[in-house]
Amino acid sequence: MTAPATADALGSRPETLAAGRILDRARELVAPALTDAVATLHPWIAEMAAYALGHGGTDTGGRGTEADSRGGKGVRQALALLGAELAGAPAACGVPAAVAVELVHTFSLVHDDIMDGDALRRGRPALWKAYGTGPAVLAGDALLALAVGTLSTAPEAARRLSAALDDLVRGQADDLLLARRPWTGPEAVTAGEYETMAERKTGALLGCALALGAQLGGVDERIVAALDRVGRHLGVAFQIVDDLLGIWGDPEVTGKPVHGDLREGKKTFPVLAALDGPYGPELAQLLGARDTAERAADLVARAGGRTAALREARRHLAAADALLDSVPCSPHAAGELRSLLSALTRRTV
Amino acid sequence: MTAPATADALGSRPETLAAGRILDRARELVAPALTDAVATLHPWIAEMAAYALGHGGTDTGGRGTEADSRGGKGVRQALALLGAELAGAPAACGVPAAVAVELVHTFSLVHDDIMDGDALRRGRPALWKAYGTGPAVLAGDALLALAVGTLSTAPEAARRLSAALDDLVRGQADDLLLARRPWTGPEAVTAGEYETMAERKTGALLGCALALGAQLGGVDERIVAALDRVGRHLGVAFQIVDDLLGIWGDPEVTGKPVHGDLREGKKTFPVLAALDGPYGPELAQLLGARDTAERAADLVARAGGRTAALREARRHLAAADALLDSVPCSPHAAGELRSLLSALTRRTV
Repeated sequence: MTAPATADALGSRPETLAAGRILDRARELVAPALTDAVATLHPWIAEMAAYALGHGGTDTGGRGTEADSRGGKGVRQALALLGAELAGAPAACGVPAAVAVELVHTFSLVHDDIMDGDALRRGRPALWKAYGTGPAVLAGDALLALAVGTLSTAPEAARRLSAALDDLVRGQADDLLLARRPWTGPEAVTAGEYETMAERKTGALLGCALALGAQLGGVDERIVAALDRVGRHLGVAFQIVDDLLGIWGDPEVTGKPVHGDLREGKKTFPVLAALDGPYGPELAQLLGARDTAERAADLVARAGGRTAALREARRHLAAADALLDSVPCSPHAAGELRSLLSALTRRTV
Repeated sequence: MTAPATADALGSRPETLAAGRILDRARELVAPALTDAVATLHPWIAEMAAYALGHGGTDTGGRGTEADSRGGKGVRQALALLGAELAGAPAACGVPAAVAVELVHTFSLVHDDIMDGDALRRGRPALWKAYGTGPAVLAGDALLALAVGTLSTAPEAARRLSAALDDLVRGQADDLLLARRPWTGPEAVTAGEYETMAERKTGALLGCALALGAQLGGVDERIVAALDRVGRHLGVAFQIVDDLLGIWGDPEVTGKPVHGDLREGKKTFPVLAALDGPYGPELAQLLGARDTAERAADLVARAGGRTAALREARRHLAAADALLDSVPCSPHAAGELRSLLSALTRRTV
């Protein structure tokens, strides 16, 4: 597997090039261990796991092109390595943590795509579309079991991963339940509920990645806990930025249809913030329909939903920054982490 | 939750009453810890988990009657407690192992029903039928994560559970793949492949239950490993007996339709054994069809498939018995385990 040029995916501004290099370096360092871990699986499941991880190589079995088979950005593995470095240890110390969190992330994508009925993932058929729902459920199970297994010789780390898994599942449950709730009235979803969901669904594993890396790097629990919270803030910011891109992002860059989230009636932060204002009732009538999505997007912006979302994402990034300032850690690694946080949320924030 | 009279489910012969008492006692001992563990889950997931465990209480939300909400026999939790007692420890020592293996078993039932498209479980809608596929995938994930979490303070036990999970997933993968293979020709499934699948899919967790209990009870690894193998032999015997019941069992007792496995074209031991004989080609033509199932059942019996299956199940039980003889352990607990092994496979063997 060659390292794809992640810098391209983030954009070509000078400040994002550093983040691209961090991600590419992490991928190179972690790939052998990740490939070794996947190779221990049942051959059929290993094939599905490689597909889900984007380790398709040149032979994608007619299920996508070589270019399509590129994996994700590998943010979690990079955070795990940076966690170890923040602790003053070599990046390699964080590799077991990196493998575990990437496996958990892949498990959650595979199962979430089934739950959400998402047919596409990274520009090619989601695993359940390519192999069937049953096999995809099983492959997800195998990835989860493998992730847990990789940390079985590090009990403290295994406990932390277990706690993150608990949050991850809670966040996904909240997400499925929020989708069923109305836009207005006493049962309406609040921005606070959204943030709790986002912290669990996205932040817990990002926090776990940093914290696990630091834990394996050997720092004390106070620092580990602070880094966990850095990742949780990043998760909420990341999710809000994702929402902004889902409404106003360039489909060429995001790979998602224009206004897709609005047409599907997804409970996103900008919309929830906009509903909590004078245009609320009017906006509520436009949501979840195909032909009113553009008008809804305009109304969300006019009602201040976009501004509120940007402000909230910035607030979480600032909180992450302050936490990072508050703990003694490698200045070089902290600088790298800041580049990464910034690049991951830069395009819209 | 009151303890259902499991003895009834096993039959009323005197020799099965002892097994019923063992299962009922295990359920009483483990239920509080299992209920406590499930109560830590997200409320919605806890509701689904309780449904899947059969802890429906009187309020089953219109999804079944109170009688239907009875859980499984709880064989795995009973084996975990017996494991501890075989080690000379009190049964209570095995409770954390019992909770973990029951949670893993429930996870696997929830996900397997999705994979196999089975709409009924224990006489009422399977979880995915009652709550939807997505939520059932999530509930299974939560049960698996919870199972792993319950053993996070016992690293040795966590490693053993992890290895069993790996086998469980492999067994399910084999099962799904065997179903796609032809009845005859060079790609035909062999009885040996079936047994490998059954040992992984069913035996690994039964073996893990006994072994984990013994491990928590404090015996050395040689005895733990032997007990693991006892459970694996039980698993294969249990699966073969299940196959026999799936063809010749009383639908009133099994809760399954007559000849259901034959109509669905399931790769069962009696059929595989029968195919490996002079009636093979004739039998292969009758399999997987609704109106030829009775003729297929007759032909399987005539070709010696039933006899071969009974013989093979007995062979595995004898091997379990010999292993149990070979290790020093509490004679009382060994007697109880023998009652249980015998009762679980008695009806047809």
